[in-house]
Amino acid sequence: MPHHTLTITPRFYETDALGHINNASIAAWFEVARITFIESLEKQTAASSVNWILASLQIDFIAETFYGTDVIATVTDATAGNSSLTVSCEMTQGGKLTVRGKAVLVHLDTESKRPSRIPDSLREKLAAA
Amino acid sequence: MPHHTLTITPRFYETDALGHINNASIAAWFEVARITFIESLEKQTAASSVNWILASLQIDFIAETFYGTDVIATVTDATAGNSSLTVSCEMTQGGKLTVRGKAVLVHLDTESKRPSRIPDSLREKLAAA
Amino acid sequence: MPHHTLTITPRFYETDALGHINNASIAAWFEVARITFIESLEKQTAASSVNWILASLQIDFIAETFYGTDVIATVTDATAGNSSLTVSCEMTQGGKLTVRGKAVLVHLDTESKRPSRIPDSLREKLAAA
Amino acid sequence: MPHHTLTITPRFYETDALGHINNASIAAWFEVARITFIESLEKQTAASSVNWILASLQIDFIAETFYGTDVIATVTDATAGNSSLTVSCEMTQGGKLTVRGKAVLVHLDTESKRPSRIPDSLREKLAAA
Repeated sequence: MPHHTLTITPRFYETDALGHINNASIAAWFEVARITFIESLEKQTAASSVNWILASLQIDFIAETFYGTDVIATVTDATAGNSSLTVSCEMTQGGKLTVRGKAVLVHLDTESKRPSRIPDSLREKLAAA
Repeated sequence: MPHHTLTITPRFYETDALGHINNASIAAWFEVARITFIESLEKQTAASSVNWILASLQIDFIAETFYGTDVIATVTDATAGNSSLTVSCEMTQGGKLTVRGKAVLVHLDTESKRPSRIPDSLREKLAAA
Repeated sequence: MPHHTLTITPRFYETDALGHINNASIAAWFEVARITFIESLEKQTAASSVNWILASLQIDFIAETFYGTDVIATVTDATAGNSSLTVSCEMTQGGKLTVRGKAVLVHLDTESKRPSRIPDSLREKLAAA
Repeated sequence: MPHHTLTITPRFYETDALGHINNASIAAWFEVARITFIESLEKQTAASSVNWILASLQIDFIAETFYGTDVIATVTDATAGNSSLTVSCEMTQGGKLTVRGKAVLVHLDTESKRPSRIPDSLREKLAAA
């Protein structure tokens, strides 16, 4: 079970006029969390992170996120299908759960740009993560 | 059934190094679509658009979105619960369906900042939309 | 003298916790203004807008910009050097001058990715704009 | 002379279709650099970072910035006028100078929202920085 953790320091421009972090910035943070997770595995393999495309995104905003305190984003699960990878993520701020997200990525063949089977080398890293 | 439509001209900075529009920009566009939809109804009522907070977001990326062609975002459904409003949205580019989104918003009492029943005036507008 | 005009509807996520539009969003709007200006000329020529790179940016924030009222961005001047193009822009909101910007772009040769002389076809369009 | 340093890990969504970091993201990074610099001083004083508004921004893009390597942003100078503060910043990536920026901030009175003299407590911190 993966347990990749990333610390995000909220930036002032990521706030909005409601005085909290805007949801689009949180969608962006989730991208950072899943890309750095995949990169942490692929550094050890031949695959490149740009082989992935986002198929769907689900984010639950459990509590507001604010400027001034670091956010911890944790990849809590990553399940490989044939060409798809479902990545789950939780974010906390000051120990409080703020965000729960799930993204489905599709692995692309670099040449054909079509969905292609996730390579075994990465499957092994996922299993061991 | 609501049928609010918004034209979005993709901006160059909304692309990413994959050569298409980044998913976080599409999450941001969806916010524009649902806020302008609600504002189009509330202009006719007393309520203010900042009375809403996002509880969850679901986006399916059906096809890539590119720079250079306008995107049409249509609010296809908006269903009111007690204090929640579920807004569905579809985006097309060049006639092709690219994005399907669903957002659950919660109506807040301006004073207490707690969930509060969606006012009847807005329910009537939603029913008529 | 060019007089390209663009209407920008501020988006809620472009605000920050100070309750106004964040400066980075205004930098982004300026990019939209100068790219659409150049594209409006180049559509009539062979050149592509991705032949340009930003060398410097100067923005004066004359007054705050707020959510809720359209912004008019006008390219007030565009002066060609050998390979550089200096684009000046003003933004107003509700008739009030809010932003004055100047950007220096460098025209790149598509193959070599090195600075290359702005083609005469574009110079003529600039002179006529 | 101040020498505040910040490490920025470029995020994938900050790239654009030219394959490098978009200029608006660099404007945003500069905001992070100057705000964290001011906060690092003010933590030791009574003033709040939201007492500042941006009057002007100048950015020279010396070299392209890319995804995949950390950027070091250094506040190289901060000079106080009566109510204004001019903050200079340099960014490097892989040891190469990529960005040189200068921002003029104005100190606001929290109550009146009008320019107000930078407090002596902060001037002392600036002098000692």
